[in-house]
Amino acid sequence: MRFVPPSLRLFLLLNLIACGTTHAAAPPLLRVTEPGEPGPRLRARELGIAIGIYPPGPLDAITDVGGVRVGHTTLIAGDGKLIAGKGPVRTGVTAILPHGGDLWHEKVPAAAFVMNGNGELTGLSWIEESGALEVPILLTSTMSVPRVADAVLTWMMRKYPGIGVDDDVVLPVVAECDDSELNDVRGRHVSEQDVLAALDGARDGPVAEGAVGAGTGMTAYELKAGIGTASRVLPGEYGGYTVGVLVNANHGLLPELTIAGVPVGKELATPRAPAGPRSIVIIVATNAPVDARQLNHIARRAILGLARTGSTVRHGSGDFVLAFSTASRVPHYPEEPVRDVELLADTKLNPVYEATSEATEEAIVNALLAATTMVGRDGATAYALPIGKLREVFAKYGRQLK
Amino acid sequence: MRFVPPSLRLFLLLNLIACGTTHAAAPPLLRVTEPGEPGPRLRARELGIAIGIYPPGPLDAITDVGGVRVGHTTLIAGDGKLIAGKGPVRTGVTAILPHGGDLWHEKVPAAAFVMNGNGELTGLSWIEESGALEVPILLTSTMSVPRVADAVLTWMMRKYPGIGVDDDVVLPVVAECDDSELNDVRGRHVSEQDVLAALDGARDGPVAEGAVGAGTGMTAYELKAGIGTASRVLPGEYGGYTVGVLVNANHGLLPELTIAGVPVGKELATPRAPAGPRSIVIIVATNAPVDARQLNHIARRAILGLARTGSTVRHGSGDFVLAFSTASRVPHYPEEPVRDVELLADTKLNPVYEATSEATEEAIVNALLAATTMVGRDGATAYALPIGKLREVFAKYGRQLK
Amino acid sequence: MRFVPPSLRLFLLLNLIACGTTHAAAPPLLRVTEPGEPGPRLRARELGIAIGIYPPGPLDAITDVGGVRVGHTTLIAGDGKLIAGKGPVRTGVTAILPHGGDLWHEKVPAAAFVMNGNGELTGLSWIEESGALEVPILLTSTMSVPRVADAVLTWMMRKYPGIGVDDDVVLPVVAECDDSELNDVRGRHVSEQDVLAALDGARDGPVAEGAVGAGTGMTAYELKAGIGTASRVLPGEYGGYTVGVLVNANHGLLPELTIAGVPVGKELATPRAPAGPRSIVIIVATNAPVDARQLNHIARRAILGLARTGSTVRHGSGDFVLAFSTASRVPHYPEEPVRDVELLADTKLNPVYEATSEATEEAIVNALLAATTMVGRDGATAYALPIGKLREVFAKYGRQLK
Amino acid sequence: MRFVPPSLRLFLLLNLIACGTTHAAAPPLLRVTEPGEPGPRLRARELGIAIGIYPPGPLDAITDVGGVRVGHTTLIAGDGKLIAGKGPVRTGVTAILPHGGDLWHEKVPAAAFVMNGNGELTGLSWIEESGALEVPILLTSTMSVPRVADAVLTWMMRKYPGIGVDDDVVLPVVAECDDSELNDVRGRHVSEQDVLAALDGARDGPVAEGAVGAGTGMTAYELKAGIGTASRVLPGEYGGYTVGVLVNANHGLLPELTIAGVPVGKELATPRAPAGPRSIVIIVATNAPVDARQLNHIARRAILGLARTGSTVRHGSGDFVLAFSTASRVPHYPEEPVRDVELLADTKLNPVYEATSEATEEAIVNALLAATTMVGRDGATAYALPIGKLREVFAKYGRQLK
Repeated sequence: MRFVPPSLRLFLLLNLIACGTTHAAAPPLLRVTEPGEPGPRLRARELGIAIGIYPPGPLDAITDVGGVRVGHTTLIAGDGKLIAGKGPVRTGVTAILPHGGDLWHEKVPAAAFVMNGNGELTGLSWIEESGALEVPILLTSTMSVPRVADAVLTWMMRKYPGIGVDDDVVLPVVAECDDSELNDVRGRHVSEQDVLAALDGARDGPVAEGAVGAGTGMTAYELKAGIGTASRVLPGEYGGYTVGVLVNANHGLLPELTIAGVPVGKELATPRAPAGPRSIVIIVATNAPVDARQLNHIARRAILGLARTGSTVRHGSGDFVLAFSTASRVPHYPEEPVRDVELLADTKLNPVYEATSEATEEAIVNALLAATTMVGRDGATAYALPIGKLREVFAKYGRQLK
Repeated sequence: MRFVPPSLRLFLLLNLIACGTTHAAAPPLLRVTEPGEPGPRLRARELGIAIGIYPPGPLDAITDVGGVRVGHTTLIAGDGKLIAGKGPVRTGVTAILPHGGDLWHEKVPAAAFVMNGNGELTGLSWIEESGALEVPILLTSTMSVPRVADAVLTWMMRKYPGIGVDDDVVLPVVAECDDSELNDVRGRHVSEQDVLAALDGARDGPVAEGAVGAGTGMTAYELKAGIGTASRVLPGEYGGYTVGVLVNANHGLLPELTIAGVPVGKELATPRAPAGPRSIVIIVATNAPVDARQLNHIARRAILGLARTGSTVRHGSGDFVLAFSTASRVPHYPEEPVRDVELLADTKLNPVYEATSEATEEAIVNALLAATTMVGRDGATAYALPIGKLREVFAKYGRQLK
Repeated sequence: MRFVPPSLRLFLLLNLIACGTTHAAAPPLLRVTEPGEPGPRLRARELGIAIGIYPPGPLDAITDVGGVRVGHTTLIAGDGKLIAGKGPVRTGVTAILPHGGDLWHEKVPAAAFVMNGNGELTGLSWIEESGALEVPILLTSTMSVPRVADAVLTWMMRKYPGIGVDDDVVLPVVAECDDSELNDVRGRHVSEQDVLAALDGARDGPVAEGAVGAGTGMTAYELKAGIGTASRVLPGEYGGYTVGVLVNANHGLLPELTIAGVPVGKELATPRAPAGPRSIVIIVATNAPVDARQLNHIARRAILGLARTGSTVRHGSGDFVLAFSTASRVPHYPEEPVRDVELLADTKLNPVYEATSEATEEAIVNALLAATTMVGRDGATAYALPIGKLREVFAKYGRQLK
Repeated sequence: MRFVPPSLRLFLLLNLIACGTTHAAAPPLLRVTEPGEPGPRLRARELGIAIGIYPPGPLDAITDVGGVRVGHTTLIAGDGKLIAGKGPVRTGVTAILPHGGDLWHEKVPAAAFVMNGNGELTGLSWIEESGALEVPILLTSTMSVPRVADAVLTWMMRKYPGIGVDDDVVLPVVAECDDSELNDVRGRHVSEQDVLAALDGARDGPVAEGAVGAGTGMTAYELKAGIGTASRVLPGEYGGYTVGVLVNANHGLLPELTIAGVPVGKELATPRAPAGPRSIVIIVATNAPVDARQLNHIARRAILGLARTGSTVRHGSGDFVLAFSTASRVPHYPEEPVRDVELLADTKLNPVYEATSEATEEAIVNALLAATTMVGRDGATAYALPIGKLREVFAKYGRQLK
C-alpha cells in the first residue's frame, strides 16, 4: 500500500471540509499549507508575480464580471489501488453561470475557439450557429460528460416545465478534461445530484481554486493543478470593462512550464505526475458589449496566455476556449423582430484582447499555486508546485517574489 | 381521447413486430400498407422515381458499403395525452458502425460538415481534429443524447477494459433530431439497454426505414418520416466505388417538398404534422480511398441532395452531415510512426460527389415513402406521404410512376 | 477560319453596342434575338418560370436593394484562332457597390461562404475578420484578378488621398471565374481603365445580364451564360425586406441543368460548349438588419438555389458566396467606442433564407436566358439556351411557359 | 530635414550592396555593424539566446528543409519627405519555393491558419480546398500584392505555355504586411521585374535577414524588423525531421517584446518607430510526411512561438501562417487515380509542433537582431534592437549572453 504522510491525510481532510460538496458559503476560502512548505498556498498576485499591464478586479476572479456565478462539487473518496468502476474517486464538476437570471430566455452572446480538438465541448455547434449561450457551462471529467449533460437537462426541465412540451429542447454545454491519472474514470462518479448541487450552489464572490470541482483530479505541467481564475479591469479610457477567466488546467509537461517568462519547469527537480492525455478548458467572461464574432476573436487571445505558460498544445490535448459577454441579452422568443444592440468598435478591442491573454496566463498560474499535493488511484501522486523552490528560481532569474 | 382507426392500430402493432427492438434478423423487411392506400409502401426505385444518373447497390442502402452495419431500437408505447416524463413514447435509437471489426483500434477516416448548427453532434471536435472516427455513430432524440452517449461509454468499456485505466478515454458520437412533436421527450425514454441492443444488433443487409430507431418519432416536410437510406455504385472507369447514405429526416415544410423536381408539396392537400423544430442528420459512407479533407468535401455534397428535396435549411434546423471512408484504417496506437495510405486524386472526386448528392436525395424520399402514419402525444398525427396521390402529382408533371 | 453566320455577326455587333464599355445609361436594356429563335431573349419571369414563393422587386435585380449599384465593362474583340496574349478577347469586369456613398468610411456588414474553394475571392480573410465590406466587389476573369485588384487600389487612392499616407492600406475584393474556353486569358485584357469605367459607371436601375461585364466569356451547364440577377421582396409581416442576388455563372454540365425542377439538361440536344474548369460567384445583397454571423448563414442558403439548378459543385469549380447588408454602417474610424446596431432576430431569418435561395436560383436561370450564342477563341462556340426548345421541355413536364 | 548620421548613410549603402536586387550568390552574408554598437549584428544563437529544446539545422534557416529556396529583391531609394507615388522607397519582395522542381505539376501538401485576418494571403481558398500548394509563395507590401500576383502569373505563363490555353489557370499566393510607416506604399514600387528577379534568384543556402526583400520596410515591436528565419532538427527517434520557419515580422508594440522569457521591451528605453497597422506572415516548411490536415495543426503552433515574443495579435494585425511539407508530391494531372502517400501518425506530431513553435520564436528574434536602423519616409526612423542594451537586460534577468 502506498504511503500517505499524516500531514497529507490531514490536508486531504481539510480539503474535503473546505471544498465540501457545494460551495454555497465558501468565503473566506480556507488557506491550506502544503506539507513541507513554510506557509499557506498563495495566489500569483500575493506572491508578487506580475503578469501583464492591467490590474485585476477585486476578487481577481471570473466573478469580477458582474453576475457571473461559479459552483463546485468536489468528489474525493477512497484510496489505494484502482478498482475500476469503484474508486478511488478524485473528480468533480464545476458550473459557470453567465448571470443569475433566466438564462434560457435571456441568453448571452457567446463564441468558442478550438485550438486543438482532442476533447469535447458539447453544444458547440449551436453556440457557433446562434452566437449565444442559453444554458450554464459545466466542466467535468471526460467520461462523466454524458451524465453531467443529462443532469443539466434535469435542471433545465425543472426550471422550465415547457421544455420539450411547447418550448424548445435543450442542448447542454459541457466541457471535459481527463482526470484518469488520479481518478477512477470508469466509475463515472459525478451523479445527477452532484451536478444539481454545483448549479444550485453557484455563487458570485471568491472562487475556490486548485483541486476543487472539475479540477479535483487534474494535473498541469505534471504538477497538481485544476481550477484557476483571474481577472483584469481596463482603465476608463478603454471603457473600464472587466475580463474574467476561469480555467480547468490539465495540460503540459513540466519542462515546458514558464511563469512570467521564468523557465520554472526546467529548474524544478520536482517529481512529476504520471504522463497522460491532457487538456485545458478556458472560460472567458466580459462585460464589454461585444458580439459572437468579436468573442471568437477574444477567445483566440486566451491561447496567447496559454502559450506564455509554456504549453505547446500537444496532440493529445483538447484546448477549448469559450467566451461570453454579459453586456446584452439575446431573447429566446423575441417580442419584437428587431432589437437594438450596443457594440464595441473592433478598433477598441485591443485592451480586451490583452486583458484576456493576461488573465488566462494568471489563471493557469493560480491553478498551479492553489492546488495541493494529491494522491490518487494506485498511489499516483500529483505534487503541488513547491512555492519555496519557486521563489529560488525566480530569484535566479532576477525577480524577487514576496 | 383521440381517434385511432382500427387499421392504424393494426399497423402500429405490425410496426412494432416488424421493427421489434433490435433488427437482428430483419430481412425480409415487412411491407406495411398504409390505411387508405391500395398497396404496401414502396421505395423510390420501386415506384419508378429515378434520381440521378448512377445505379444503386444491391440493397440501395448504406450497407452496400461493405462492412457497414446498422441497428435500430424502436420504442413505441402509450397513447393519448402527454404526461410529461411518462409518455406517450415514440422514439428510438439507431447505431451505424463503419465496420464490424475493432473500430477503436482501427479507426476510419471521417469528416463532418455542419450546414446549420441548431443541433448537436457530440464528438465533432475530435472528428475534425483527428480526421477519424473511432466509435459507432448513434442517432437519437435530442433530449436522449446524453443517456445514449453514456451508454456508448458503457458499451466501449465492456469491449475495452483498458479504457480509462491504461488506455485513452472515449468521446461518443451521437447526433440528434427533435421528436417532441410526437414523443414525450422529457421522459428521455431511450435506456442504456436500448442503446446496447441497437449496437449489438447492428447488422449488414437491408436496413429498415421510416418510423424505426431514431426515426420513430420524426417528421419531415410535415409528413411522417424518419430513417431513409440509398446507395450508388460508380462505374468501373470511375473506380467502381460505392457511396451509401442514411438519413434521419425531421426537417422542412410541406410546401417545400420536391421529389425528383416535381413540386409534390405544393400539390398535396395532405394534413400537416404540427410544426416544430426540425433537423436532419445525414451519414455518408464510402469505400473510396479518401481522407478527412476529401470527406469534408463529400459531406458538403449531401447538402445538394437535401436542397433538391426542397429544404431551405431553416433556422431551427440542425443539418449535420458526417462522412466516413471504409477504405483504410487509422491505427489507435500505431506500431510504425509512418504508414502508407492510398488516396484518390481530387480530380477523380466528381463522381463520388454526384453519388453522394443523389443518394442523399433518394434516402430522404425513401424515408418519406417508408414511414407510415403515426399518432403521437396529445393525438398529434403525422400522416404518411400518400403514394396514390403522389402518382397523380407525378403524372401531372409528365412522369409516370409504377 | 471558323464560320460565323451573318446573323451572329450582327448579334455580336449589337451586343457590343448594347453592352458598350460602361453601362452608364443602359435602360432600356436592348433585347436581342438569338438566331433561330422567334423572339427576343426573355427573363425567367417573362417566360412564366416561377421559382419560389416570394415576389421579386420592381427590377427583379440586385439593384432592388436600395443603394446597390452595378457597372459592367464588356470586352469583345477579335475572332478566330487563339494567339496567346493577343486574342480573341471575350472577357470583362463587373463592379458591385453596396451603396453610393463613402464605402471606405461607412462599411457594410458582410460575410462569405466558400462551398468549394477552387477559385479566388481576394480580401476574404479581412471580410471574415472584420465582418464588414469596405471596398467595391469586382468580378472578372481568373487571370485578370491581380490587374483588377490593382485598379481598385488606383480607384481608392484617387478617392482617398490619405490611404497609405496617414490612413490604412486597402485590401481589394475581387472574385474570379475562368473564361478561358472562349477568351485569351493569357492576355489579361482587362485594363485599369476598364475597371475604373465599371466602377465609375456603376448605376442603380436595371442590370444588364448574360454575356456582359465579367460574364462576357462565361458558360454554365455548357451553355452560354454569365451575369444573372433576381430579387425577392418579403411581405410586411416578415419585415418587408428585399434580397437581391447577382451571379457570374460559369459552372455545371448540361445534363445536370434543372430549371424549376424540370430536367432541362437531359432533354436538350443542344451542342455543348467545350468542357473546362467552372466556377460561380454569387453576390447577395439585403436591406435586412443582419450582422456578419447572420450573413454567413444567409450566404449558405444561396447554395440551395444553386443546387436546385442541378449543380453538383464539381471539384474544378470555385463556388463562392459573398453577402452584405445595407441596413447599417460600420464606421472606419468610429467617433464613439460603442455604437447602437439594429439586429433582426435569428428566429425571423427564415424568410430571408428562402428569398436568398429563390433569388439565386432565378438569377442563374436569368443568366442562361439572357446570354446569347458566342463564338470565342479557336471558333469555340457557346450556344444560348434555346428558348423555343425550353418551352417544349417544360410542356412535356406539365408546365406551360408564356 | 531629418538628420541622417554619416555612419547610417554608410550602413544604408552597405545594405544596398549586401541585399542587391537578387541574392543569387549571397553567402557569405555581409555582417553590418549598427552605429553605436561595438560589433556586427548577430543571430540569436550566436548571442547565446537559447529558445526551446531542439537543435537548429546547419543554416538555422528555412532552407535547412531540403529543396526550399528563398529569393529577395530589396528596394531602397530616395530620402526625406514623402511624395506620394514617388518615394522614398523602402520595400521589396521575397519568394519562397517549396522545391526547385516543377511545382505546378508536383505540388506539395499545404495548409494555412489565420490567427487574425486583418491582412491578405491570396490563393488561400484554393490551398484550403486542395490541401496543396502549386505556386511559389511571395511576400510583399500590402499595396503591392496585386502587381506581385500579376508578376507571378507572368512567371508561371513563361514556364508553362499551356496555362490558360489547354491547362488550368493560376491562382497566385501572395501575403502582405504593411510597410507604410517607412515606405511610399502608394507608389506600388515592386515591379514585375523585381518579382521575376526574386523568383529566378531564389536559392538554397543561407537566407538574408532583416531589412531585405519583403522585410525591407517592416518594423516589429516598434523596432526595425523584417525577414527572420530559423530551423529545428528533430532527433532520430522522432523521425529526424527538419522544420524551418521564415517570418516577415511587422507586428507588436515595444513594451510587449519578450525574448526567451525576458521582458526586453519593458526594459529598453529605445525610441519607437511610429505606430501603425502591423502584421506578421509566418511560413513553415517541413520534410515530415504530413498532409494538409496535419499542416493546419502545425501552422497553429507557430502562433505559440509568436505569443512567446510578446504579441497580443492586435486587431490591426494580419497574422497568417502558411505551412507546407516537402515529403510528398501531389500531381497536377495524376496518371493513376489512386496514389500511395506516406503519412506520419498524429501521435508522433508533438515534436514537430514543438519545433514549429521554437523556430517561429527564434525567427522573430532573428528578424529583430538582423535588422539595422532605417530612415524612411518623412524621416521616420525605425531603430535596430540595441544588442549592447539587450545584453544588459538579459544579465539583469539572470542570463548571460555571449
